[in-house]
Amino acid sequence: MTAARQVHLVRRPNGVPVADDFAVVSVDVPDAGDGEVQVQNLLMSVDPYMRPRLTADQPLNVAMIGGGIGRVVQSRNPKFAEGTLVRHGVGMQERFISDGKGLQALNPDPALSLSVYMHALGGTGITAYGGLLEVGALKVGEQVFVSTAGGAVGSVVAQIAKIKGCYVVGSTGADDKAAWLRDEVGLDAVINYKVQPLKTALAEAMPKGIDVYFENVGGSHLDAVLPRMNVRGRIPVCGMISTYNGGGEGVRNLSAIIYSRVRMEGFVASDFPHLQTKFVEDMTGWLKDGRMKYQETILDGFERAPEGLIGLFSGLNSGKMLIRVAD
Amino acid sequence: MTAARQVHLVRRPNGVPVADDFAVVSVDVPDAGDGEVQVQNLLMSVDPYMRPRLTADQPLNVAMIGGGIGRVVQSRNPKFAEGTLVRHGVGMQERFISDGKGLQALNPDPALSLSVYMHALGGTGITAYGGLLEVGALKVGEQVFVSTAGGAVGSVVAQIAKIKGCYVVGSTGADDKAAWLRDEVGLDAVINYKVQPLKTALAEAMPKGIDVYFENVGGSHLDAVLPRMNVRGRIPVCGMISTYNGGGEGVRNLSAIIYSRVRMEGFVASDFPHLQTKFVEDMTGWLKDGRMKYQETILDGFERAPEGLIGLFSGLNSGKMLIRVAD
Repeated sequence: MTAARQVHLVRRPNGVPVADDFAVVSVDVPDAGDGEVQVQNLLMSVDPYMRPRLTADQPLNVAMIGGGIGRVVQSRNPKFAEGTLVRHGVGMQERFISDGKGLQALNPDPALSLSVYMHALGGTGITAYGGLLEVGALKVGEQVFVSTAGGAVGSVVAQIAKIKGCYVVGSTGADDKAAWLRDEVGLDAVINYKVQPLKTALAEAMPKGIDVYFENVGGSHLDAVLPRMNVRGRIPVCGMISTYNGGGEGVRNLSAIIYSRVRMEGFVASDFPHLQTKFVEDMTGWLKDGRMKYQETILDGFERAPEGLIGLFSGLNSGKMLIRVAD
Repeated sequence: MTAARQVHLVRRPNGVPVADDFAVVSVDVPDAGDGEVQVQNLLMSVDPYMRPRLTADQPLNVAMIGGGIGRVVQSRNPKFAEGTLVRHGVGMQERFISDGKGLQALNPDPALSLSVYMHALGGTGITAYGGLLEVGALKVGEQVFVSTAGGAVGSVVAQIAKIKGCYVVGSTGADDKAAWLRDEVGLDAVINYKVQPLKTALAEAMPKGIDVYFENVGGSHLDAVLPRMNVRGRIPVCGMISTYNGGGEGVRNLSAIIYSRVRMEGFVASDFPHLQTKFVEDMTGWLKDGRMKYQETILDGFERAPEGLIGLFSGLNSGKMLIRVAD
């Protein structure tokens, strides 16, 4: 028996989540029983997709759902030796018991940081890869616009599009992210939508229109993009972060998709198991040869998970936001 | 030389078009020259797709673009004998000269009314057929919701879906159209959205959700549908009539397409030349065996074309709106 902390949702947020919507609660974790392992969490992920769940299907007063990487510290399951690193979706718990289902043993490449298995080589990476290449049906040399290009998914999307020889423009709301995208990542243009009206900035930066718009934002962002979509353009819809906390403008320019025969299509990370092997091979190569750059914001301390989740909506993170629980 | 009338757009409408935006103008039509034909219009079509053009690419003070059926009354072109019936997109003119390009000779089935070649067997028919079966990827037995189901395209869509063994619900804003759809066409349910709030009516009429939503309306109609779309649902986007005259509500529920992996896709009638042969064969059969019913609103008199076009936005028509120019 060991004491360990969990993050609970204790109240459904009204708009942007606040600290009092969450509680950090200590529970007793038993020893691993027959067929079980005890896992100590090392890294936990906080992601924009969690916000809609807070209003809907995340139960109150239990450990928040979420992804992480942990280490097996007790094993009575022959599939997982003690010391094995595992990726899981068990959620925001310092330690937990598992029968092994849903745990994925990791053999991280020693040339890469373990944390990349939580983003570029994890759920955000496959989301970007499958969303852009399969749902977006990206073709070499196309005109690509990526919203929240400084974020965890967006930055991977923008770089895959560059690797595929496309003309790539990204939007972000922060000057430091804009500088990183321009100077380090090498996008063809970067729009800080808080400084320039998106509509005129797009007209200037993308005179050949838009073939693929990777959608993370929704609302007025989408409205500015729609009239600039080229015929047979695609809009893979990954997220609509502008709408998750309520409020915001409705979308008024949707009829633009008719004459341009634009396809909009929603997807989630779990849609791409058939791409997993090729994805890991491609992404590992791109990370190791330096063509795939990333930023991380890692908050130290289990108890900072709510702060990290809330911070996603104020731009606290540069790139992927993670919580470090232990080394 | 013969005098003949044309309908001109003389002013761009502000909101719903009004009579003073148009003028009926008499011009002199010369005799057919070498390689030319003179065509007398018999039937002209007015369609919702014309409204956005009035604001954008319809030039002022020339004959309005549009489809029709005419008869060759003078021919100096060996491809078209005098008396040949032709379908054309030449526009709102009583008579016109053509070199034959864009004229399609018609051999109407004597068991059918000529007017069906302007709707069920014309552009509205192929729009419904291609939009539902190809863009909508309809499968036998699915749950289908059709907006403006009493209109020219919607009524064909709803009946094709019934022929394909689907559960079909339609919306309309008029009691007489609702009665026709329920009693004559045999839809599974009909919603008069002016009487019942669409959101609650859909929940009641479509307890199994919606696999295909055939979109003619946009705005608040789309917002009511989006949360009820089933996983991997499709929204072929044919029109968004609620937005054409400006104003109206923005769409707020688009993020529903993400978790449900819904695909929305725009299309136009001319996207389906590869389906034309099968379409004519299927539709002729359905019309002759009585499985495809239709309504027409035919205004007599060339000069009533503006009235017909304006009337589309107040529900003046039951089914396809046509202007009869001559017999």
